[in-house]
Amino acid sequence: MDVEVIMREVIEEIRPTEEERAFVEGLMKELEELAEEKIEELGLDVRPYFVGSLAKDTYLAGDHDVDLFLAFPLNTPLEELRERGLELGRAIAESLDSYEIAYAEHPYVRARYRGVKVDLVPCYDVKSWRDVKTAVDRSILHNRWVVENLNGRNDEVRLLKRFLKGINAYGSEIYIRGFSGYLAEILVIKQGPFLEVLKNADFMLRQKIIDPGNWLRREPAIARKTVKREVEEDRPLVVIDPVDPRRNVAANLSWEKYGIFYFKSHQFLESPSRDFFFPKGKPKGGYLEELRRKGTHLVTLIFQPPELVDDVLLPQLERSARGFEKALQREGFNVLGWNVGRMGRAFIMLEVDRRERERVRIKPGPEFFTDRGWDFYSKNERVWITGKRLYSEKIVRESVVDVIVELLEKNQVALGRGIREAVEGAEILVDYVPGELEGEAYLFLSREKWNLKG
Amino acid sequence: MDVEVIMREVIEEIRPTEEERAFVEGLMKELEELAEEKIEELGLDVRPYFVGSLAKDTYLAGDHDVDLFLAFPLNTPLEELRERGLELGRAIAESLDSYEIAYAEHPYVRARYRGVKVDLVPCYDVKSWRDVKTAVDRSILHNRWVVENLNGRNDEVRLLKRFLKGINAYGSEIYIRGFSGYLAEILVIKQGPFLEVLKNADFMLRQKIIDPGNWLRREPAIARKTVKREVEEDRPLVVIDPVDPRRNVAANLSWEKYGIFYFKSHQFLESPSRDFFFPKGKPKGGYLEELRRKGTHLVTLIFQPPELVDDVLLPQLERSARGFEKALQREGFNVLGWNVGRMGRAFIMLEVDRRERERVRIKPGPEFFTDRGWDFYSKNERVWITGKRLYSEKIVRESVVDVIVELLEKNQVALGRGIREAVEGAEILVDYVPGELEGEAYLFLSREKWNLKG
Repeated sequence: MDVEVIMREVIEEIRPTEEERAFVEGLMKELEELAEEKIEELGLDVRPYFVGSLAKDTYLAGDHDVDLFLAFPLNTPLEELRERGLELGRAIAESLDSYEIAYAEHPYVRARYRGVKVDLVPCYDVKSWRDVKTAVDRSILHNRWVVENLNGRNDEVRLLKRFLKGINAYGSEIYIRGFSGYLAEILVIKQGPFLEVLKNADFMLRQKIIDPGNWLRREPAIARKTVKREVEEDRPLVVIDPVDPRRNVAANLSWEKYGIFYFKSHQFLESPSRDFFFPKGKPKGGYLEELRRKGTHLVTLIFQPPELVDDVLLPQLERSARGFEKALQREGFNVLGWNVGRMGRAFIMLEVDRRERERVRIKPGPEFFTDRGWDFYSKNERVWITGKRLYSEKIVRESVVDVIVELLEKNQVALGRGIREAVEGAEILVDYVPGELEGEAYLFLSREKWNLKG
Repeated sequence: MDVEVIMREVIEEIRPTEEERAFVEGLMKELEELAEEKIEELGLDVRPYFVGSLAKDTYLAGDHDVDLFLAFPLNTPLEELRERGLELGRAIAESLDSYEIAYAEHPYVRARYRGVKVDLVPCYDVKSWRDVKTAVDRSILHNRWVVENLNGRNDEVRLLKRFLKGINAYGSEIYIRGFSGYLAEILVIKQGPFLEVLKNADFMLRQKIIDPGNWLRREPAIARKTVKREVEEDRPLVVIDPVDPRRNVAANLSWEKYGIFYFKSHQFLESPSRDFFFPKGKPKGGYLEELRRKGTHLVTLIFQPPELVDDVLLPQLERSARGFEKALQREGFNVLGWNVGRMGRAFIMLEVDRRERERVRIKPGPEFFTDRGWDFYSKNERVWITGKRLYSEKIVRESVVDVIVELLEKNQVALGRGIREAVEGAEILVDYVPGELEGEAYLFLSREKWNLKG
């Protein structure tokens, strides 16, 4: 189908309707008035700002998270900003439907109002990057820069964001490491409209550095330091933040997510389809058939994780999976891949080459002519020399489950922080998963979960 | 039992009787006269020398190989020495029982006479190491040095040689890499009698350098160069040849054989026994029971080797076994050990962790943003990215026999020179060996073949 037709149809679906727009604008006006009222009541010198995709008018239809930033004067002490900010947030939220306190660099109020999530975030009222004191301060500057530069390309941003969501490369969270909304906006502003951004997927990677704020001229020393640092960190892209020369907007973008964008852009340009934006479900299949086809085995650890947000939990699950991979390889099991996630309980899946290993392993010892050599010689029944070293054999557990239990008991697996205890109490299943994990197990074993051609 | 008693009893067994000695001396006299007669007939300027353990009176009872060296003047051209030497050897051998021509650095005559093997070897009549031209010339010097320095310790040499034979560390052949007779003689001369040599097993290794000819004083530059070279080659011992400062008498001694000597010396001194000199047979057991006990598998390649002496064949079998070890490890089989030999046909045994591997292997590809990346992406069905690289899977043969056949077909095993064709035509057996290899398979799988405590 013609690419223009597809894009037009997709835009129809993702651009908010006039009705939706009116609702959002009404909501924002209402919240602003409420905030100003409470600021006055509390006698604070605070300015409310809307930031995020709603404020930039780059939000997707139906996606209405409100970010209301409460900006304190720069000379406010941090402790005071925390206390007063939270106080103000609470005061506003009392008039909304419900709220809770959430914790990031400092605490903020997460409320709900008329079916919409409303974050009330205290920050400093910065005018320039030199003023930035806390992680959230920059948002006001981002917002302003995008509004000033977007030049009517709002729907192009919507297309790109929807495309990135469709191909599973959207979101800068640590456990996703994809494209942030702000990065998508910058790419549309600097690399041309949606289709041009896709066509530039290869060029951008080679060019590597994108400098929409012209910092390399305006602040060469600082900007060059940023480039040097980020190149050394081997990022796929270095996008110098147009509002702060010290920062790479794409610092959290992984090579994997850029690679998906790279191939999917190519595929879309070759044979465009609506499916890139709204993918049909992943292929379904039986994980047991996959195991039979591959001749491999699936070990699944399932456990109740401690109460941690995904941002914290998922990286620790990944770390643990890598720990199991290394430990099992040392024990003679080949780990072909791993997969982690949370589906009610947390899980770590390991694809291994076999359920059982040999019962005896060769145990390398020290050089024969040393004290430790004599010790090894005395302690083992059958001992022989190859080169200068002594060798013997040891009897080991055969089954992969027994090996894992033993590794955990001996504390020989590098596990993620905060989840050791939970992992140690995990149920360990081999070649079987409970119903709710069957789909996940199939997607993992077949690699359809990550298949670029899927 | 008392060590002195044991040694006395062993000496009784290994020292030639008066009768045997008379026979040997008569034989040598007869051969010398025959040689002188033939030298005169052919009008040659050659001196006959007896060398080897018979000439040094360090031979073991019943072990009567005669080495008769035919020494030509130093100014004889090499070509002439070869021709005339062979001619003279033949002339002598015509009067013996039978003979054949053997080939080393140059051809020589290998005859039999009165049940004894008689080697007739042409060489140069060297007076000093500076004269040495061919590999065999040094023997005359060795012989003289031992006779001049042995000082009545002949039986001590006999004990040491018998001990080394008993523990399977005797012989400097390339496929044995143990102690030569000459090295045993030097050790007795320099390190004291038999028991002292054993007590010095650890000290010698630490001292490393033995210099019975005092070359480090007499020819420091040359001797130091020898030491440096041999230390760099990481030999267990550097014994500067008392008749040639350029040579390490222990150059062919392996760490493995020294290690056996090291532990067996210790064992003998702790609890002396006649068994060290005359070992009882290796323990016997069933190889199938060993396989069951260990949970491992035995792959045996059996083939008719090309006509090569053990000196040439065995190192090439070892090289091939190492080639299989590496190739199979690459293919995901763990090789716990290997064993080679000749028993009628040649064999290579490999102990592996399993008969079958998984049917699918992960195939790492190139970085995704390269031409080769695009190529890999196009050619494979399921492709994913980890880090910067593409990955896919490939279907592989499961059975270890199929894998070996495929590796050989694709020429992916580093095989020994001269035996490729024979190995490629080998029968491949899994967890089964023909009757004549059952004992060998047991000794290998149980490691009793090399067990220091066996």
